[in-house]
Amino acid sequence: MPAEFEPHDGCYLVWPERTDTWRLGAKPAQEAFAAVATAISTSDPTTVLASSRQWEHARALLPPEIRVVEMTSDDAWARDTGPTFVVDSTRSERRGVDWVFNAWGGLEGGLFFPWANDDLVAAKVCELSGSRRYRAPLVLEGGSIHVDGEGTCLTTAECLLNRNRNPAQSKDEIEGHLRSYLGVDRVIWLPLGVPFDETDGHVDNLACYLAPGRVMLTWCEDPANPLREVSYEARRVLEASVDAQGRSLEVVLVPAPSIPSMTAEEAAGIDRTLGAKPRTGGDPLAASYINFYIGNAAVVFPLIDPRHDDLVQELLARELPGRRPVGVPAREILLGGGGIHCITQQVPAVGV
Amino acid sequence: MPAEFEPHDGCYLVWPERTDTWRLGAKPAQEAFAAVATAISTSDPTTVLASSRQWEHARALLPPEIRVVEMTSDDAWARDTGPTFVVDSTRSERRGVDWVFNAWGGLEGGLFFPWANDDLVAAKVCELSGSRRYRAPLVLEGGSIHVDGEGTCLTTAECLLNRNRNPAQSKDEIEGHLRSYLGVDRVIWLPLGVPFDETDGHVDNLACYLAPGRVMLTWCEDPANPLREVSYEARRVLEASVDAQGRSLEVVLVPAPSIPSMTAEEAAGIDRTLGAKPRTGGDPLAASYINFYIGNAAVVFPLIDPRHDDLVQELLARELPGRRPVGVPAREILLGGGGIHCITQQVPAVGV
Repeated sequence: MPAEFEPHDGCYLVWPERTDTWRLGAKPAQEAFAAVATAISTSDPTTVLASSRQWEHARALLPPEIRVVEMTSDDAWARDTGPTFVVDSTRSERRGVDWVFNAWGGLEGGLFFPWANDDLVAAKVCELSGSRRYRAPLVLEGGSIHVDGEGTCLTTAECLLNRNRNPAQSKDEIEGHLRSYLGVDRVIWLPLGVPFDETDGHVDNLACYLAPGRVMLTWCEDPANPLREVSYEARRVLEASVDAQGRSLEVVLVPAPSIPSMTAEEAAGIDRTLGAKPRTGGDPLAASYINFYIGNAAVVFPLIDPRHDDLVQELLARELPGRRPVGVPAREILLGGGGIHCITQQVPAVGV
Repeated sequence: MPAEFEPHDGCYLVWPERTDTWRLGAKPAQEAFAAVATAISTSDPTTVLASSRQWEHARALLPPEIRVVEMTSDDAWARDTGPTFVVDSTRSERRGVDWVFNAWGGLEGGLFFPWANDDLVAAKVCELSGSRRYRAPLVLEGGSIHVDGEGTCLTTAECLLNRNRNPAQSKDEIEGHLRSYLGVDRVIWLPLGVPFDETDGHVDNLACYLAPGRVMLTWCEDPANPLREVSYEARRVLEASVDAQGRSLEVVLVPAPSIPSMTAEEAAGIDRTLGAKPRTGGDPLAASYINFYIGNAAVVFPLIDPRHDDLVQELLARELPGRRPVGVPAREILLGGGGIHCITQQVPAVGV
């Protein structure tokens, strides 16, 4: 699996629609997703997947350079339902890993039921892009892994070892699948993800690779914030780790925003259904600046807190030179339970 | 618009599903469509478009070299709902003409209601294939036109001038649209299509181009068959016509099968719904050997009548040398109201 900072042939997103995830008939979320897709399309060829019901509306809202392809899904998290694309050693062919998807925990804490359409998204994207496909015998979402493209995978035990994912498999077996399907030699296990993250601690809200040997970590020093312990512990593990190439890791800290929460008015705009987790005013939102997308020419990052947004933009410009940082208001995506990275899936380049 | 016998980059089909068109839950039709798609896939890169409900089943039934892409439709006639692909004079770019679709006659004799999904198929196929699109201000189905690729279009007045298509447009205006959108200089108007054809006489069941200047015509000498007058009159018009290049046309005759009809048992397997035309045992079927698909390396033609099938195969082998004639049992497609040509849409090659 190439790292996200390596060249891309494209990017996929899924159009948000379900009214028990997205408030006000998903209209504010659609505007936010359109802004993210538009920003990415200035950098990577972009495809948005929209249901039959929403295809015309998505086509109307998105700029013409974005391809809009019909696809049924249960929700709009391309990172977690799309294929994880891998390449061969000569980068001449791309294939898709199609992980088993259970809506972040199945019947034990999963976020909605049923999830059969989402579990088909990876296979359908592979068909679309003419990629051969591996169906992996592992419940996994793309947001729970990050790789450096040189043999190292970063993940969290909270998610991958959660009993609502692969209870019958040992840590060694799970790590074995990561090695086989991602082509990595070393897995670095961080203990916990960001507090209140409904994904059971996806790594893509906590830490990510900026370059081989260089990891960015969300950082909190506020003793009243439960993230403090998590980020301290993650830093300790990262600084004690050696990657697949034998390197120690440099850790770059990015400030965590103070924990935002859903307002009662926002919660009131979300449909209550039997199939989805209910939302209430005051629910904390797992906001993190780490949840950005690294494109060929742009880094699309979430605008969360005016006190930090500019500093984050400067940090990304410094850390990812040659890429234009583009901030996009992310609150409507946060309200649905994720961030910009969660709604994207890069297609690594082949034949370069 | 390049002729069908020119090189293709691919072919699209739509997976049959609606149970008020296709008997027995569409299972026999799906088998027939799969056989057609499989035959074409040996010749042209083939994509089958299937609804969310049928995607998995279509994927399971079709060979892996066929791409299966999700798309919602109202029925399965890619010729009539797909885009008509055109190319520029240097064959460097391909664009799609997206005709207005009204289910072969709208509320005045159309075959089902509603048809909004079918009217979106052309736009969605253009997106998929990355083709720019012209929305033409004309109700037209692809089966009502054939071109020689050198400036001539063949059509029938019965269909194109039918008041259930474009009642507010004169013949000159309609011909003007054909000239503009297909890039043709001459339109040859045949008066009537094959009797009992529910499309109001699509030319693709009556006559087609084998090469510039060379037209194949379904031919009937049985005075008891209403096709006799139609085919005689079509021959008279064709032989009196001059094409865009100033050539007279050579007419190659292919025998018409005797008119088959739907059995009562077959009709009983079709759902009765408010939205679709009811079917009855004894309904005549508009069978024609003309309704074949010319691929790069194969001609896929309908097996209709064992008394003629072999002769047709020999005729096609002689007339379209270098292409393997492949006969596919067509009765299940005929029961739905069309033939092999009706369920296909070629993608002319560019950059060759």
